[in-house]
Formats: sequence, C-alpha cells, structure tokens
Amino acid sequence: MALEPQLYNPPPPRRAFVITRLHSQTHEIIVDLSTQSIISDEVYGGHGYPLLTSEEQTAASVLPLTYPPFIASITKRSLKLSDVVCSTFTINGSGAGSGRNGIPIVQAESPIWSPLNGVSAMPPDGPGFKIDGHNVRWANWDFHISFDARAGLIISLASIYDLQKGTFRQVLYRGHVSELFVPYMDPTEEWYYRTYFDEGEFGLGTCTVPLQPMLDCPPNAVFMDGYYASQDGKPMSISNAFCIYEQEAGRIMWRHTETDIPGEEIKEVRPEVSLVVRMVVALSNYDYILDWEFKPSGSIKFGVGLTGIPAVKGVSYTHTDQIKEDVYGTLLAPNAIGVNHDHFFTYRLDLDVDGDANSFVKANLETKRVTDNSSPRKSYWTVVSETAKTESDAQIQLRLKPVELIVVNPNKKTKLGNYVGYRLIPGSLSSPLLSDDDYPQIRGAFTKYDVWITPYNKSEKWAGGLYMDQSRGDDTLAVWSQRNREIENKDIVLWYTIGFHHVPCQEDFPVMPTLSGGFELRPTNFFENNPVLKTKPPTPVSWPNCTH
Amino acid sequence: MALEPQLYNPPPPRRAFVITRLHSQTHEIIVDLSTQSIISDEVYGGHGYPLLTSEEQTAASVLPLTYPPFIASITKRSLKLSDVVCSTFTINGSGAGSGRNGIPIVQAESPIWSPLNGVSAMPPDGPGFKIDGHNVRWANWDFHISFDARAGLIISLASIYDLQKGTFRQVLYRGHVSELFVPYMDPTEEWYYRTYFDEGEFGLGTCTVPLQPMLDCPPNAVFMDGYYASQDGKPMSISNAFCIYEQEAGRIMWRHTETDIPGEEIKEVRPEVSLVVRMVVALSNYDYILDWEFKPSGSIKFGVGLTGIPAVKGVSYTHTDQIKEDVYGTLLAPNAIGVNHDHFFTYRLDLDVDGDANSFVKANLETKRVTDNSSPRKSYWTVVSETAKTESDAQIQLRLKPVELIVVNPNKKTKLGNYVGYRLIPGSLSSPLLSDDDYPQIRGAFTKYDVWITPYNKSEKWAGGLYMDQSRGDDTLAVWSQRNREIENKDIVLWYTIGFHHVPCQEDFPVMPTLSGGFELRPTNFFENNPVLKTKPPTPVSWPNCTH
Repeated sequence: MALEPQLYNPPPPRRAFVITRLHSQTHEIIVDLSTQSIISDEVYGGHGYPLLTSEEQTAASVLPLTYPPFIASITKRSLKLSDVVCSTFTINGSGAGSGRNGIPIVQAESPIWSPLNGVSAMPPDGPGFKIDGHNVRWANWDFHISFDARAGLIISLASIYDLQKGTFRQVLYRGHVSELFVPYMDPTEEWYYRTYFDEGEFGLGTCTVPLQPMLDCPPNAVFMDGYYASQDGKPMSISNAFCIYEQEAGRIMWRHTETDIPGEEIKEVRPEVSLVVRMVVALSNYDYILDWEFKPSGSIKFGVGLTGIPAVKGVSYTHTDQIKEDVYGTLLAPNAIGVNHDHFFTYRLDLDVDGDANSFVKANLETKRVTDNSSPRKSYWTVVSETAKTESDAQIQLRLKPVELIVVNPNKKTKLGNYVGYRLIPGSLSSPLLSDDDYPQIRGAFTKYDVWITPYNKSEKWAGGLYMDQSRGDDTLAVWSQRNREIENKDIVLWYTIGFHHVPCQEDFPVMPTLSGGFELRPTNFFENNPVLKTKPPTPVSWPNCTH
Repeated sequence: MALEPQLYNPPPPRRAFVITRLHSQTHEIIVDLSTQSIISDEVYGGHGYPLLTSEEQTAASVLPLTYPPFIASITKRSLKLSDVVCSTFTINGSGAGSGRNGIPIVQAESPIWSPLNGVSAMPPDGPGFKIDGHNVRWANWDFHISFDARAGLIISLASIYDLQKGTFRQVLYRGHVSELFVPYMDPTEEWYYRTYFDEGEFGLGTCTVPLQPMLDCPPNAVFMDGYYASQDGKPMSISNAFCIYEQEAGRIMWRHTETDIPGEEIKEVRPEVSLVVRMVVALSNYDYILDWEFKPSGSIKFGVGLTGIPAVKGVSYTHTDQIKEDVYGTLLAPNAIGVNHDHFFTYRLDLDVDGDANSFVKANLETKRVTDNSSPRKSYWTVVSETAKTESDAQIQLRLKPVELIVVNPNKKTKLGNYVGYRLIPGSLSSPLLSDDDYPQIRGAFTKYDVWITPYNKSEKWAGGLYMDQSRGDDTLAVWSQRNREIENKDIVLWYTIGFHHVPCQEDFPVMPTLSGGFELRPTNFFENNPVLKTKPPTPVSWPNCTH
C-alpha cells in the first residue's frame, strides 16, 4: 500500500492505492480514506506479481520442515532439522521452479578484541535540527521524510534557504531508490535464477531493520519509526526505521590560507557539519546501509554501504589447487564459494531545481586542437553544452566520454546570466555485463544506461515495473523511454544507477567489512556565490568538570 | 634536501642527498652526516630546475614593487601599490617569458551566519593511538610518518597486525603524492603557460600550512611539526604540519541482521573508528586537503579535498549575454572568469604486500555467452586473471574495460590457496584531455594511464622527473617505463592518478566549498577471513555530571 501524498493547497481528499492478492488475482484498489470507501477495484491482468509479503515467506519457509520426504532427506544426511534453515528466493527464471536452499548460518565467535577507543557524546544543546511530524529542518535545509513499504526511505520537498534571496528554493520534489538489481554470475542449475530485484520483490521498506542506537547510528542520533500495511491490511511498525544525526567527521567545509599578500596572512577555515538520514535494509544475507547526507553548501551526498554475509555456494573443494574449472566465484572457506555478483542501485530523483520546469544539460568536455599558431599550446579542452531534447538524448553511458551532467532551470538565471542548476557527480562506474537478450537483463534493462531522464509521469516510479516478481521486462524504464518523449523545460525525473561488481574475497567471510560508495548532487550556478561563505567559525565547546 | 632513511639493522651511516643552486648551477651533493663531510658533489647538466624556494619567490614578488615603470603603470590605473599583489608563477612554456600577474584579493565579508551546532569533545581517555617519534601505533596498524619538502606527508613501513597469525604483516613500504599536475585550459597569451606541476615546482611540503586545531582538524586531533632545509640550509619548521585523529563519522564497520532462523534473531553491529592523518597544502590560490585513513579492516582510504580560491581571469564581461566567444571558463563574478582546469594527483605507492616481491594482477571481468543450452541464462561474467609480466602490461586506462587491480604476493597464499593481495579501488575517473604532443602533456605524460607499475628503482620517485621546473619531459614515469622492464615477482611500485576536471561554478567563488574524492587500497585475500570479526562492540561512554 502506498499513500499518495497530496501536496496541493487545499489538499484534496486523501486516497490510498492498494495492491492486494485475492483468490489468486492481483487487485488494484483505490480507497478514499476520508469516506472509507472504495473508489475503484480492478484486477491486474499483466505479467508479474507484487512484493512478497513476510507472511508468505514465513509460510513457505516453514512448509518443508513439515514435509516427510524433506525431513527424511535431512535425517539421511545425519543432520538435525534445527540445523537447517529454509529461505525464500524469488523465481526469476522464465518459468523455472522455485528455490529452497539451506544457507550457511554464521555463528558469532567469542569476541576477543578490545573495543576501539573514541568519543561518544551528545551535543550539549541537543540536536541542531527540528523534526515536526515527518518534516525536518536543519541549518539551511527543509525536507520531508517518509517510509514506503517498497522504497523504504523517501525524501521529498527538499528545499534550501538562500541567504541572499531570503527565501527557500526547491531542489528535490521526491527521491528514493527505485530498484536494486543483484544478479549472480553462476549459470548452473541451482544458481542461474539468482538475479534478485530486491526492492520490487522483497521491499526495501519491509526489510528495513530497526536501527540500534550507539551502534547503527552515533550517540547523537534521533530515530523515527516506519509503518506499512501487512498482508491482511493491519499496520505493521518498524521501530527506529530511520535515524537522523548531525555528522561531524572532521571534514573541512571550506578553507583558505592566503600567503601572497605581503605583511598579511589570511587564514579562514570552516569545519563541516552535515545532516545524515540513514536506513539499513537486511535482504536475507546482505545488509545495505543507505544514507542521505545534506550539506549546508547545498550538496546532497548519497551513501551506499554493502555489508552482511556474502551468498555462498556449497562445494566439495577445500583448497584452490583442487579447482580446475570455472567455479564462478572465490573459495572463501572450506566448501564455500562466494559467488560473483553485481549490485545496481537505481535512484529515482525527481528534481525540481528552483521550480518544476527543468532541462537536462550535457556539458561535454571536448579537446580542441590549436592549429593556427595562435598559442604556444597545441590543445586544451572546452565545454560544449547540449540540452537534451528528448529521452534518447539523455541516455548516457558515462564511461564513453567526459561530460558534466546538469539539471538546470531554463527559466531562471543567476544575476550573471548562468542557468541555475544541480550537477550529478557520479560514483563508481560499474555497468552491467550481461548480454541485452539475457532474461535477467531484459528485466533489468533500466541499468543499461548510467543515466536516464524521463518526463514526470505519476505511474513511472519503479524502474523495473510496478509488478517486479516474475516480471517479463515489459514495464521497465527502458520500455517507457522508447517513446522518446520531450524532456526540455519540463518536470523531469533523473534516474541514476550506481553499480558495484563484486568478486568476493576471503575478508568478506563470514561477514563483510562495509564496502562504501556514493554519488553527489551539487549546486552548480544555483547560488550567486559560495552559500556558506558567511558561516561563522564554531565556538569550541568544552566540559571542564566531567565525571565518568 | 631529502633524508634517505636507512632502514636496515645495524643502520649504515646517515647520508643526505642535497640539491642546491650555486653560481647558476644545480649541484647534487651527498653529505655524510655522521662525519659531516661531503662524499660527492656533481653539477647537474640536464633540463629543468629544482623546487622554487620561498626566498626566491619572495624576492621575485617584491621586485616589481620597486621598479619605476611598474609603479608608474599602477599609478596610471588609479591604484595604490598596496592594492596590488605580485605572485610567482612557473614558466611552463617552451622558453616563454615569466608570468607576473595580480590576482584578485578576496576580502572576507563579515560573518552573519550562526555556527553549526555539534559535538566537540576529547575522548575521556585521550587518543587511542601512540606516537613514538615518527612512529604511529593504532589499533592493528603500525606506520611511520615523515615530512618531505617536496612530497609533504610520506607514510612508510605500514604494517597491520594479523590476529590469527599473531604477527604484523607488511602492506606499504612507502607512499606519497608524487606529482600534482594542474593544467589550465585557456590557450591565450596570459594563460597558456599555466600548467602547474605544483609538487615539483613549488613543493607540497614547503607549501604545507600549519593546521588550526578545532578547525582544520577535530578537537581530538594530535599534531606533528614538519622540518625542511631553507635556501641557505638552515632548518625551517612548519608547526602543526600534520594532524592525526581518530575519526568516528557514524559509519558502520560491519553488521548483519539475520532473520532467516526461526525463533532466533541475530543482530551484530560494529561501529567504525578509523585513524586519519591529514595535511593541508595551500598552493597560492588553491587549498588541498590530503588525508590518509587507516581502517581496522585493513583498508587505507586516500582522501583528496579541493578548496580555496579558483584562479580567475579578469575580463570586461559582467553578464553572460555579452559573451559571444569561448572564454575558457565560467563567469563567476562581474569581470571574473573562473578558468577551466584539471587536477591530477599522482600517488606513488611502493606496496610490499606481505613481503617485497609482488606481482600485479589484472582480474578482468569478462562476459561469457551461454550458447550450448546448458543453462536458462544466456550470459554471465567471470574473472579472467592476467599477471602483468612487464611494465606495458600494467599501463591501464580504467575507462576501457571492467577490471579489478590487485597487487599480490605470488609467494604467499592463504590456507585456502588464494594469493594474498591488496586491491586498488579507484576514485573518480578523469583522464587527461590534452593531446599527447602538447608541451604540458609531454611533461605530464605520467597521467596518460590511470595506473602504471614499475620495478622499484631508487631514483624513480617523482613522476614528472627530479627537476620539474622548466622540464622537457625527458625524465618522467612515461619515459622510464619505455624500457618495459619485468615486474613479475619483484619489488614493484604502483602509480595511480586520481583526476578531477573542474568547470568552475559560481558556488566556487570567492572560496570553493570542498569538493571531495578518493580511492582505496583494500585487502583482498590478504587475511584468512574478516580481520575485524572479533572486535567487541563498544562500551558507551557517558559524562553524567558535565558542566559547560
């Protein structure tokens, strides 16, 4: 169930769009919440199924443990039923059978290392941000946090206060992870179908874990719960689904030491404090740490952390010397291959840069040859900007050529005449390596380009389609974009995929030290000049009489 | 002057290699420090000059202010001499004249913003690391810090304690920034020569700024001074040249929530603390923040922060509407164009992965087609590893194909049989766009590939050559590597360039909010499993009776 926020003034009646399974059919129901009445109820007839519910997964996991032939097969292997864990995998094959496999259980060994020393303190004046319902106000930022069963964390209506203009200015209408595609690279019978679309199949929201204070988030964090509708429509709560904290990581917001002026030395340094909103999603074996970091300078940094347990495949090998074939991964422990795979996080970022009519500019960096002896230089690069007219102009593989990608408001300029904009600074480049005609890649075709731009369309929220489970790839971003719609000076949506190829290594076993990546949205001629120039240096805080 | 550390036991007599200018000649002198005698004194006859000294730069800057025609030209423009700043630029042209230009002085406006709220506290038990002379010991890391006039911060003899083996294991023999190439992209008379090699021309060490406690580094930082020889051989000190601090940024070292085991929930989270060593270099207008971050998991993360003042060019324009030609940059303020440029940081990383004989492995990720119907999948990727035999095998442009880059010890395997290694996880990919035959690119040819591997050679420390100022490109990494030496199972050096293309924007003016990037060296089958698995969760610290 997803609530449609109605952001107009005065708001129309609140309505809910409900997807439910009834008598083996998928119903799409619109409910008017104020009158508690059903407006429409239609049966969905296309491919694919909605999110697996936790009730369905629990039911499926328990079933084999009561099935005599399964119990017999366990006994035959001299195992106890309590040694066996049944887990639910999505099918992901073109009509193949379902997977029911035991996964290794990692027992924590007794800790023998000292904890690391460090600071743990609350700021003396409490958090520097205010939360009013789901609205967060901090430094120059104002935004809304919401929880969605499928997307988990959704940030919306993010705007930033412009000191010079004396007003808040829009940046982001709505942003969230739209799909998380995790294909494994083992084509054999037991593994070929492990090409998860974790968000559309399992739900980043429903798999959000309660964050542990002091551990998942620093001591100064404030927590927020999340709610979603369970299979029978009753509300389910996830306590501490998000945390919000001011991050002081020892970074420098800006600085300069000026030494060129005789007899004078100018030194100005401003340490950086930013605001982080975090959720952690545990999708069976893997744990994903998903951060939004808001900086006073106007940047939003998106952090992606990969930890948890790598998926392993049982094998007879105990040493690499015994391996004479491609085992599709790395021997991580005796009898355990960590299978090669990818993680593609596709973000849907409905930017509204200083208003909702925006354009997408590719600022190509092109080498120019100097051939007329006008300069002792033989070359330089310059910026050749190109505004994308239609969707195909904005389908970009970032490896191919150097380009800066900017969402601008073509109706607003700075006083100097530059278009106000926000720039995407991409993270690690890892594009899909599956062939286009491979079934998982047909379903995951939205990863083919690192960047796509679409005109806003209310129904286009999920890059892999509304019904991801057992989908056929007929409702993806790649299909919608075939219409090649106009995107200039329109309300546009930026889709960006940050990918990781993962060749497991022994350090990843049994639990993987976090592998981090991320990307940034950064104001580019949005402000007239450095928006944090006038930040005062901090006053040092000390606690002279502390006992502990 | 660079002291050659003698790391053997018993150490031989300490010797210093001195480069000095005498009667317009460059002398290379070897001094025996214990006997205070000169071992050898040779005049260098090749191209290029050593680092500009600060005394030379001061002398040059003051000179025009006493030169009547210059004074007259200032008076003619209705300016006072005190309004004018003279700065020293390196020539960088093939025999062109020197540059003497006024740069804009940025006056700090009165701050009117509140400081950002936050935590400022020392850990109650003091820092969790020990500094013994220049040796740092923290958590499982042990390394040496030294200061070099040219490189600034040098980290050497970094080793990590292996809990399972009960011993320290080598990781890095010596690492530092080897050159910093900053070419501007304006081919006109006044700008074409601005293609700085900041490290070899000006010195990252000599331009290191004293770090300000609480501002450049967090409250829990410890500082270390740096020393170098001035023009006349007398020692010069830079106070607080480096800071060292434990960073608690709210990150998670590893975690897992296991929900698949019926009736049980396993939740284990370890927050991350890392150790940061920082220096800040102010090279005229620009400020660079250079961090080394050591993680208990064995990773070393290299942080690069760009801030300070973008170089601007005076123009008549006050609005973009007036601009009808390529101005090679962005109008940042009335009459000021921020000129397009690059920053290429070339790191020299003499890795010794578990010993000094290492090999370089390219683990290529290659798509395989399934054509024999052995699987419902049509494709997958697998790892095809290739050990680089000679230097040319290891010259890599990362954009071209997906590859994991691993320095392994071919003589050591894990118990499971994987080669122990450290992997390079690259940062933002920005390759040079100048043509190969352009003079600055001939001198900066070491940026042509993102990665190079060379066999260790004592004389090959500076990617652009020992004498960078007015060099001709005949002593660069690209030239050395033409020998195509063998690099398999040898003491090898990894050269990695992290680059940034910079199209200035108005937010960069007058001081630029820090733009951050970085890369990582990460253990890959170096340990038998997750080396921080046994870290205890931290004990929360509280100060119940604080007054402030």
